Amino acid sequence: MSKEFDVLVIGGGPGGYVAAIRAAQLGFKTACAESNPYADPKGEPRLGGTCLNVGCIPSKALLHTSHLFEEAGHGFADQGISVGTPKIDVGKMLARKSGIVDQLTGGIKGLFKKNKVTFLPGHGSFVKQAAGGWEVKVGAETVVAKNVIVATGSKARHLPGIPVDNKIIVDNVGALDFDAVPKKLAVIGAGVIGLELGSVWRRLGAEVTVLEALPDFLAAADQDVAKEALKLLTKQGLKINLGVQIGEVKTAKKGVTIAYTDKSGAAQKLEADRLIVSVGRVPNTDGLNAGAVGLKLNERGMIEVDGHCRTNLPGVWAVGDVVRGPMLAHKAMEEAVAVAETIAGQAGHINFDTIPYVIYTSPEIAWVGKTEQQLKAEGVAYKAGKIPFAFNGRALGIGATDGFVKILADAATDRVLGVHIIGAGASDLVAEGVVAIEFSAAAEDLARICHAHPTLSEVLHEAALATDKRPLHA
Amino acid sequence: MSKEFDVLVIGGGPGGYVAAIRAAQLGFKTACAESNPYADPKGEPRLGGTCLNVGCIPSKALLHTSHLFEEAGHGFADQGISVGTPKIDVGKMLARKSGIVDQLTGGIKGLFKKNKVTFLPGHGSFVKQAAGGWEVKVGAETVVAKNVIVATGSKARHLPGIPVDNKIIVDNVGALDFDAVPKKLAVIGAGVIGLELGSVWRRLGAEVTVLEALPDFLAAADQDVAKEALKLLTKQGLKINLGVQIGEVKTAKKGVTIAYTDKSGAAQKLEADRLIVSVGRVPNTDGLNAGAVGLKLNERGMIEVDGHCRTNLPGVWAVGDVVRGPMLAHKAMEEAVAVAETIAGQAGHINFDTIPYVIYTSPEIAWVGKTEQQLKAEGVAYKAGKIPFAFNGRALGIGATDGFVKILADAATDRVLGVHIIGAGASDLVAEGVVAIEFSAAAEDLARICHAHPTLSEVLHEAALATDKRPLHA
Repeated sequence: MSKEFDVLVIGGGPGGYVAAIRAAQLGFKTACAESNPYADPKGEPRLGGTCLNVGCIPSKALLHTSHLFEEAGHGFADQGISVGTPKIDVGKMLARKSGIVDQLTGGIKGLFKKNKVTFLPGHGSFVKQAAGGWEVKVGAETVVAKNVIVATGSKARHLPGIPVDNKIIVDNVGALDFDAVPKKLAVIGAGVIGLELGSVWRRLGAEVTVLEALPDFLAAADQDVAKEALKLLTKQGLKINLGVQIGEVKTAKKGVTIAYTDKSGAAQKLEADRLIVSVGRVPNTDGLNAGAVGLKLNERGMIEVDGHCRTNLPGVWAVGDVVRGPMLAHKAMEEAVAVAETIAGQAGHINFDTIPYVIYTSPEIAWVGKTEQQLKAEGVAYKAGKIPFAFNGRALGIGATDGFVKILADAATDRVLGVHIIGAGASDLVAEGVVAIEFSAAAEDLARICHAHPTLSEVLHEAALATDKRPLHA
Repeated sequence: MSKEFDVLVIGGGPGGYVAAIRAAQLGFKTACAESNPYADPKGEPRLGGTCLNVGCIPSKALLHTSHLFEEAGHGFADQGISVGTPKIDVGKMLARKSGIVDQLTGGIKGLFKKNKVTFLPGHGSFVKQAAGGWEVKVGAETVVAKNVIVATGSKARHLPGIPVDNKIIVDNVGALDFDAVPKKLAVIGAGVIGLELGSVWRRLGAEVTVLEALPDFLAAADQDVAKEALKLLTKQGLKINLGVQIGEVKTAKKGVTIAYTDKSGAAQKLEADRLIVSVGRVPNTDGLNAGAVGLKLNERGMIEVDGHCRTNLPGVWAVGDVVRGPMLAHKAMEEAVAVAETIAGQAGHINFDTIPYVIYTSPEIAWVGKTEQQLKAEGVAYKAGKIPFAFNGRALGIGATDGFVKILADAATDRVLGVHIIGAGASDLVAEGVVAIEFSAAAEDLARICHAHPTLSEVLHEAALATDKRPLHA
């Protein structure tokens, strides 16, 4: 006899494990299926998805180590700290990274136990609609669930003619595990992953060249921020080429040669020891057997859902990277909670307008709400307040004066429409912006709220004052 | 003939210069008087007050350098970074610190020019009420102002029998300028300044002993936070002795001997090379000639003011450390803006309930709103959500897993009453708490607001969920 559940979640990443935990908290008999072992030494399926195993978490560990390495090499002398020439032991750096991943993925197992979620190791695959829900094959066994939440995530998009072996040519997986610092590193795609991992290896000594097909840098970001980021990353040594067209990529045992046409139309050739392909991600629906049950995908291969993450099938939901919207772990978690609560008859709600974006370069980039180019396109009359970190005492103290905060507010109502940050601590500073926008704050509200001195958050405060042309410190 | 102003500000610290800038922005003819040269090489008066010259700003610079020094010595090896034994060049560290101070104090001069504030070098001293306002002597000249804002700040409290020479026995001024790392450093007073500067010199190699008269550690902080701080700082090597009674302090050329009674009543003797006296601060009213015009001080020497910073004299206001309330730069700035706006007939308002507190130890400590002990004393029914940083992916990535976030919410209404943080980035994370409390947020509001992953701000998110016993990651 099949095991029966109220809720079966297919996929154990941020969308999946959070959906499972929240469903279980709400009293549902819940299971979560996951088949991907990632780097598990025993080859057993691991929870946490791309984010924890080969994405956000390990990259942040490497970003931290490489940041300190760069500080030691270039930032210490001015402060009076002498340390000689720092050396990096890549194996040790990676072992620390893996330890963090192990701890967190193991932690989710613990959370499943605590919340009474059944972990089903195996790939979830639809069989048919059955009495009382859906029959789904998970590995060797078959389960029936009243509700199925698909949270199968995404995988790196690869390019035709550029075979990823995750040794010489890598995607996000291999780029986290180079066994040595490449002398020359090529990156195709100047998105979040390309810039973060390009930064990691550059800081450790690689000569990094980034090739991007689009003519605009970080097109989704506010273009003021993108321009500043391009300037700063270039100054740090990333060679960023925009508007290129990738040609033939030839691999040899020890490296790769990339032919491309630059934005002026001239033929170029780039030789590198390693190549990171980071040109976006595609939804994971392999093996889900969507067709057999008529689960509708859109033309881009995503599962079609409405604003509440309902698919076209009754009792089947989908969240995270496998559906529309930004491929961000916290967006997936928001949807996960909302779906579990909707199943429970609550008012599960996702506010897509207040999902923050973060890029963990140095300085960090983070934003929430509308960009200036969006407001222009929408014909919204707005005012902007922009304040550099260079005026901030804490930023000076920690030697991190690059960047600025820009707040966009409605010209008529003063309501905050966008908060754009490039600077130290942006990833955490943006939280204030999210809360402000959720509460429909006016720029004057932020301007009148006390900000501790000396903190980086004072730059937000000043930017809010600057929307009314009355900054106190600029 | 006397110069005439609409607004004269006496004192050029955070309360003073901000009051002057805001008053000038509002169209008042404004002057700001300051006489203290601090470390100016030419002995000329410097703007910025204690905060910029010998307080918040230089201490943050030293905290940063000493933090990196400690990371290099103790945190690098695990990450695979090898640097040999780090050495500190104290002179270079101090020169960087002084450079930051110079830049910021100079910056205020620039802000005065931009905003058309007249800088009057000299000590402001009341002469008498005059036609059209108040006659005040500033250095050699006499000015008349319709409104006078006193922002004379505070100075370190010294103890009888313990003469501060700022070489061997120092207060905040000398503690920022030791010409070498003391082998043994004693600190009297376990407050913010003692803990921050004690931490600086401990990280650089000093053996630091802190003597505190009170039996409770950080009595103003939430006692859960204080307990954690005591544990962590002790683990780092600060020897913190509470409930002591200081006896005779003997100085010699090269050091100091402190006799004290420990909390068990036993007589003890502490020998040290240097002694920091950090037992609080007293308001600065020297030379103000308050008595001559009848400006009322309270029994603690502070200028008496109402909730709007009005003194007993018409047209005379006082803000910052020289009046009641916490001696914090940002509290002074809030009052400064409110007073300038009140003079302009606006609704200048200060919310004393949402002033954040920060201590820049490692980890940082920050809070806003009520502590648990305050709520208990007030008989408020509350619920608490407490989540450690150890569960947070970003904290693991940056190797900063100590501490926790605790959110206190009203048991009946769910309204957030206090946000208490001990952990990495606390100084900036608390801004979200301030905004939440200003908007009368419920804990559920914070729980339902999207927090970027992976960020430290997720610990706040989880703490908000935990008030309702439904954390997702703990």
